[in-house]
Amino acid sequence: MAEQSIDELIRIIAKLPGLGPRSARRIVLQLIRKRETLLQPMIRALQTVDTSITTCHICGNLDSADPCHVCTDTRRDPSVICVVEDLADLWAMERSHMFRGRYHVLGGVLSAIDGVGPDQLNIGSLLTRAAAEEVSEIILATNATVDGQTTAHYITERLQDCQVSVTRLAQGIPVGGELDYLDDGTLGTALASRRPF
Amino acid sequence: MAEQSIDELIRIIAKLPGLGPRSARRIVLQLIRKRETLLQPMIRALQTVDTSITTCHICGNLDSADPCHVCTDTRRDPSVICVVEDLADLWAMERSHMFRGRYHVLGGVLSAIDGVGPDQLNIGSLLTRAAAEEVSEIILATNATVDGQTTAHYITERLQDCQVSVTRLAQGIPVGGELDYLDDGTLGTALASRRPF
Repeated sequence: MAEQSIDELIRIIAKLPGLGPRSARRIVLQLIRKRETLLQPMIRALQTVDTSITTCHICGNLDSADPCHVCTDTRRDPSVICVVEDLADLWAMERSHMFRGRYHVLGGVLSAIDGVGPDQLNIGSLLTRAAAEEVSEIILATNATVDGQTTAHYITERLQDCQVSVTRLAQGIPVGGELDYLDDGTLGTALASRRPF
Repeated sequence: MAEQSIDELIRIIAKLPGLGPRSARRIVLQLIRKRETLLQPMIRALQTVDTSITTCHICGNLDSADPCHVCTDTRRDPSVICVVEDLADLWAMERSHMFRGRYHVLGGVLSAIDGVGPDQLNIGSLLTRAAAEEVSEIILATNATVDGQTTAHYITERLQDCQVSVTRLAQGIPVGGELDYLDDGTLGTALASRRPF
């Protein structure tokens, strides 16, 4: 339809998560219309990310430095490691501004269906870190899905020989949640984990 | 939250039409994960579009050549010009594979609210083209919105002195449309414009 190079760009953008050919066309039109204010800054930002971002060899975070700024931040508590499935989960934890320890990004969860076993995840490096003397607590912040909880159980077993306490995120009613709209599982868990008022 | 250059990229992508911070984060994560297969091809495609795409001085189409490949295609009928609001409409017409003439992209519609007058649109160049001897028909393919129809009426008036027939797209029931779900305006127009069976 359109010119070849535009079609190629639409084809690539349509592959991004949540987008399709129609939204990609709208985006490309906007990019071409705002060449100086959108297209060119976007090229520069993509290039910067492509050339400067690397994976932290300690925790698996993505950063311009290796070790990453979380691992080297001396104001953060090195005795607590929060284990997350994915970088998106690390970002979500950081947005909450509540956690001041270090992270460990697994890079996924154990999944029989997707054929993901312990060797595909960064579990070995977690065990090495957990064995270090300074580490006293491992927080398992995997998702509250079946795969996430399976992975958490597996890691707990592997950590049994280490002298660390293993905790996981509380499950219960989300802030602002109304009982009437909650699923039975969440309500049941919240009841079973009730705490003194 | 994330590293500075990643945050900057998220900020830019969140400005694209239909996207926000959350979808931009998902996209950036995917881009970083698939650096060779997605991020780098996307940079190259954006650069190609940025450097090669230019506006056709005849019709306003975007193309790697000026005049564009539609204006220079000798297999297309130079006697019919289809006037569209926007490049997206030109692409939509091309996808229908039904039009084999030339185009004229207005670059918007007359709009009192948005302060768009005739001088902001490519109407002058259309009048010049319509005055050429080879042109026999101008098809007004503006949207069936109030602004689109206002613009079509304005152009019709300006074209009165030219020896061209001015037509517009038929309005009626869309293909596959069910009467029960149509709005009253469309049904009324379809009834008023009924044709012998």
